[in-house]
Amino acid sequence: MKTLEVSLAERSYPIYIGSGLLSQAALLRTHIKRKEVIIVTNETVAPLYLDKVNKLLDGYQCESVILPDGEEFKTLEVMNKIFDALLEKHFSRQVTLIALGGGVIGDMTGFAAACYQRGVPFIQIPTTLLSQVDSSVGGKTAVNHALGKNMIGAFYQPQCVIADTDTLNTLDDRQLASGIAEVIKYGLINDLTFFEWLENNIQLLKERDPHALSYAIERSCQNKANIVAQDETEQDIRALLNLGHTFGHAIETGMGYGNWLHGEAIATGMLMAADLSARMGWMPFDEVKRIKAIFESAELPVMGPKPMNSEQFLSLMSVDKKVQDGVIRLVLLKGIGEAVLTDAYDQQKLLDTLAEFQPTE
Amino acid sequence: MKTLEVSLAERSYPIYIGSGLLSQAALLRTHIKRKEVIIVTNETVAPLYLDKVNKLLDGYQCESVILPDGEEFKTLEVMNKIFDALLEKHFSRQVTLIALGGGVIGDMTGFAAACYQRGVPFIQIPTTLLSQVDSSVGGKTAVNHALGKNMIGAFYQPQCVIADTDTLNTLDDRQLASGIAEVIKYGLINDLTFFEWLENNIQLLKERDPHALSYAIERSCQNKANIVAQDETEQDIRALLNLGHTFGHAIETGMGYGNWLHGEAIATGMLMAADLSARMGWMPFDEVKRIKAIFESAELPVMGPKPMNSEQFLSLMSVDKKVQDGVIRLVLLKGIGEAVLTDAYDQQKLLDTLAEFQPTE
Repeated sequence: MKTLEVSLAERSYPIYIGSGLLSQAALLRTHIKRKEVIIVTNETVAPLYLDKVNKLLDGYQCESVILPDGEEFKTLEVMNKIFDALLEKHFSRQVTLIALGGGVIGDMTGFAAACYQRGVPFIQIPTTLLSQVDSSVGGKTAVNHALGKNMIGAFYQPQCVIADTDTLNTLDDRQLASGIAEVIKYGLINDLTFFEWLENNIQLLKERDPHALSYAIERSCQNKANIVAQDETEQDIRALLNLGHTFGHAIETGMGYGNWLHGEAIATGMLMAADLSARMGWMPFDEVKRIKAIFESAELPVMGPKPMNSEQFLSLMSVDKKVQDGVIRLVLLKGIGEAVLTDAYDQQKLLDTLAEFQPTE
Repeated sequence: MKTLEVSLAERSYPIYIGSGLLSQAALLRTHIKRKEVIIVTNETVAPLYLDKVNKLLDGYQCESVILPDGEEFKTLEVMNKIFDALLEKHFSRQVTLIALGGGVIGDMTGFAAACYQRGVPFIQIPTTLLSQVDSSVGGKTAVNHALGKNMIGAFYQPQCVIADTDTLNTLDDRQLASGIAEVIKYGLINDLTFFEWLENNIQLLKERDPHALSYAIERSCQNKANIVAQDETEQDIRALLNLGHTFGHAIETGMGYGNWLHGEAIATGMLMAADLSARMGWMPFDEVKRIKAIFESAELPVMGPKPMNSEQFLSLMSVDKKVQDGVIRLVLLKGIGEAVLTDAYDQQKLLDTLAEFQPTE
C-alpha cells in the first residue's frame, strides 16, 4: 500500500492506494470518529462492494443509500435522497458519509456531506480509475445543473481516500479508457516524463496490469495533490487541472449527461486545446499528433460529437467557471507537459479548432 | 448610522444599522467587487424595495429573481430557481448575490451563494426585524427539509449586512412581534441588563419607535457578533443562540412550515426551556413568570400548538443538530441572562414541560 498526503493544514488527509484495501477494517475505522455511518453507492457498485464495506463496519450504526447509476443522476433532486435517508434514520451531526463508487457518487456524497447539518465528515472509496485519479482527490464536490456541469457545489475535503486497485477489475473497458484519459491529462499538464511513460505503457494499462495501474494512479494522485496543496480553492494554478474541461464540459452538457463519459469528453477536449495551442504557434503540430495517437491507442474519441456546431460549443463554454469579465479563459499548452491558463488566444483560431473537430459525415 | 464588526479573520464583515441606508449607493457599491449582481427577493418585498436597490446599482449588470414568500418555500427546489436565473443569464463566478428580504430570503440566498460555482460573494439586506437581529448576521445559511428545519446548509459569511430600520415600517404586526421574540432571546441568553430594558420598553418597540428599535437591533447584533466571533461553526458557545430553538423548530416542522412564524415558535420554545429549567431547580418559577409576561405583552404565543402531543415533540426534537450520541441536548437557563447547553436535565421533567404546554381545550 502507498500512502500519499494532501497537505492542506488542518484539512490535510491521506490517500491510500493499493490492492486488498477493502479488506482492511482498521484503515477505514481509524477515520470514523463516531460509530454512525451511511454508505452512499449506486445500483452498479452495490452488488459488487457494498457487503464488503459493510463488513468492515461491524458493530457500527450503518445504513446505506443506493442511487441510480449515471452522470444524468448527479442532480440536486437525487442528492436529496441522501438527505431523506439521513433524516429518516435520525442521523446526527456526528455521522460519517462514505462515498462508494465512481465520480458521480463521490461528487454528490461529498457535497451532501458539506451541506448536511452544515457539514459532516466523509470518506471517499473510489471504485473507478477516473475517480481514483481525479474526482475523489482535492475536495471539489458538486452536482450538475441542466445548464452547466458541476455548477452547484462546495470545496470540501474528505477524511481520507481509499483507492483499492482491485475494484478496477470489475470496470468495463469504456470506463477504464475514460479513466486513462484523466491519467494522460497529468502528463500533458506538467509531467512530460510521465507522458512518455504512458506512451510506452498504454497497452499494459488497457490490459489492467496491476503494477502499471498502481504506478499510474500513484503518479496521477501525486501530481494532483501537489497542485491542490498549492491552491485549494482554484485561485490560479489549480485551474490547470481543467485542461480539456471547458471543451469537454460543453460536450457533456450539450450531448446530455451520461451519453459521453467524462473521460471521453475531456480526451476530445484536450486534443482540441492542443490543436488550438498549435494554431497559436505555441507548440508543434507534431506534438498534437502524439497526443492524438495516445488517445487513439487508448480507444478514446478524437473528434467532437456530430450534432454540436461551433455556436452551441461557444454558448455552452461561456458558462464555464473560469469565465472572467465575459471572456472564456482556456487551459492551453505551451508543449506537452506545460499547461497555461490564458485568454490570449485568437477567437478566429478557436472557431477554426471547433470547425476542425466537427465530423463532416 | 452605526457600524458593528463581526470579527472572523479574513471573513470579517461590517453590519450597518440605521435609517435611510437604502438610499446610500456608496455603502452597497463598496462591497461589490465586479459589476455583476443578482438580487434575490420575494413577492412581498419586491414591490416595496426592489426598485430602490436597483437604483443604487445603476450601470451594473443587474438582474433579479423574485421567489414566493414564506417559510414553506425555503427548499432546495425553490433555491434551484436562483441557480436557473444565474445560469440563464450566464453569470460568472464574479457575480455578487444580494439577499433582499427576511430570513427565508437571506438563508436561501446565502446558501445559493455558498454553492454557486462552489462559492461567490453575497450581501444581506434584511428587511424584517427578525432577520436584522438574527439570521442575516453570523453566516448560517440553509434550506429546510420536510423532516427537519435548516438541515441542509453551510456556514458562509456575507460581505456586509445593511439593516435599514426604515424597512420595518412596512412590516405587519405579527412579523414585528416575531422579531421581538429574537430580540428578547439575547437578553435571556447573557444580557440581563438588556432584558430589563426590554421589560420597560416593549411598548415602544411595538409602536415602532425608531430610537428604541435602533437600540434593540444594535444591542442584539452586538450580542450575536460577540458570540459568533468566538465560535463561528458552533463547536460550543454558539449553540446558546439556539435557546428555544429545539422546541421551536419542532413546532415549525410539526405544524407545517409557515403556519407558526419562527419568532412565535421560539417564543413558546424559550418559555418551555425556562419552565424545564425551573423544574430542574435551576431558576425560580418567578423568573419564568417574568419571561411569560414579556412575551404576553409582545403578543407572542405562550402555549404550544394544540395538535402536537409530547411524542410528536420528542420525535421532531430528536433530529435537532445538537443531538449527540442519541441524546437531545438543550439550551436551558440558570436564570435570566445565563443560558447553558446541557443534557443533564431530567427526562421525566421534560415530559412534564411538554404536557404543561399542550393546550387542554
